[in-house]
Amino acid sequence: MITLHGFQQSSASFRVRIALNLKGVRYETRSHDLSRGEHRARDYLAINPQGLLPSLEMPDAVLTQSLAIIEYLDARYPDPPLLPEDRLGEARVRALSQLIAADTHPVTSMRVANYLKQTLRHDDSDIREWRFHWFRESFGAFEALLEKSAETGRFCHGDQPTLADIALVPQVFTARRLGLQFDAWPTLTGITDACMDLPAFSQAYGEVYTPFSRVDTSTVG
Amino acid sequence: MITLHGFQQSSASFRVRIALNLKGVRYETRSHDLSRGEHRARDYLAINPQGLLPSLEMPDAVLTQSLAIIEYLDARYPDPPLLPEDRLGEARVRALSQLIAADTHPVTSMRVANYLKQTLRHDDSDIREWRFHWFRESFGAFEALLEKSAETGRFCHGDQPTLADIALVPQVFTARRLGLQFDAWPTLTGITDACMDLPAFSQAYGEVYTPFSRVDTSTVG
Repeated sequence: MITLHGFQQSSASFRVRIALNLKGVRYETRSHDLSRGEHRARDYLAINPQGLLPSLEMPDAVLTQSLAIIEYLDARYPDPPLLPEDRLGEARVRALSQLIAADTHPVTSMRVANYLKQTLRHDDSDIREWRFHWFRESFGAFEALLEKSAETGRFCHGDQPTLADIALVPQVFTARRLGLQFDAWPTLTGITDACMDLPAFSQAYGEVYTPFSRVDTSTVG
Repeated sequence: MITLHGFQQSSASFRVRIALNLKGVRYETRSHDLSRGEHRARDYLAINPQGLLPSLEMPDAVLTQSLAIIEYLDARYPDPPLLPEDRLGEARVRALSQLIAADTHPVTSMRVANYLKQTLRHDDSDIREWRFHWFRESFGAFEALLEKSAETGRFCHGDQPTLADIALVPQVFTARRLGLQFDAWPTLTGITDACMDLPAFSQAYGEVYTPFSRVDTSTVG
């Protein structure tokens, strides 16, 4: 049996839930509440010394780092593929994924926010602006990369979801929950809506989703 | 011809230089001085809208994000391989790489330091402590993951350099240049020394390297 060590509000865990759903892999969940520091408890550190979520525990190994976990799942369960077959397409999808997973998520994560608050004594307003700054940098670049490429389709790369969509959607949700406005990035929000039409994404989210398209319509109308 | 848009002190560019050297690929370099903001100039943003280094410009495409670039190079030039052949090994190497490239480098990067200084008005001492905090978190976890695994050899995974070593070494150099003490992580520093014995690594560094082993000896003696 496969056990996903994660947390509902952890966007990196959300990525792995989507991938497991797309692949149709059955798994158990063990939740570690980030807000209560359960990811730093001794029993979890024995599983993942880095003390971050998610980890995928299998009989023969523990895998860490969400993108590495998802690439493993993609190799082990090839259908449906989460990376394009051509090398350049694969590099593009990985780059989009890393724009989110490396340049956006870690800088805006809860552990960074906690350091800003507890050690550097910043208030919630500073932390919000910090996060919004990096979200705007990243989503702006992500949108530009989508607009610039003929490969962009219904999803980030063509008309099937890939690793790039799996990285994007949870980050969009985190930012939206904090109140970020997305009007400047129509391609990216359209793709998020398209993803959330798929049960693999909506079930991994586990809450009611209001599409960006509906929000825009009600604002205009 | 392949052109690497990078910068000598950019650790993500350093990673790609190592990979190109290991693969024996000839390339041109175009330098964009991060300290002078040249990576945010209009002509570079036309190449990479994210305005970050490195980018790999080829006749048919521009690739961004160092790990995605290196995986592309690894697929296109298979010898020597930079990932293990087995799936679990591959996942382990990718996870170690992402521990550095996602959880360490972006949080301690120059753009984050600039925001801490210019927008949040922190002094150099705060910024140094910030960086050291994340370096210690990451290198401590990296060392624990190395110690815990029977796969750790002369290099991070076995006795040939992989993507994990390519991610690790530039990050170690950045932290060492800032004055971080590495005594607590002997496995990681031993591997760094082993990497720097290879011309692919030392030529990508381009400066004189003092091995950790020699520093330790002179301190003790």
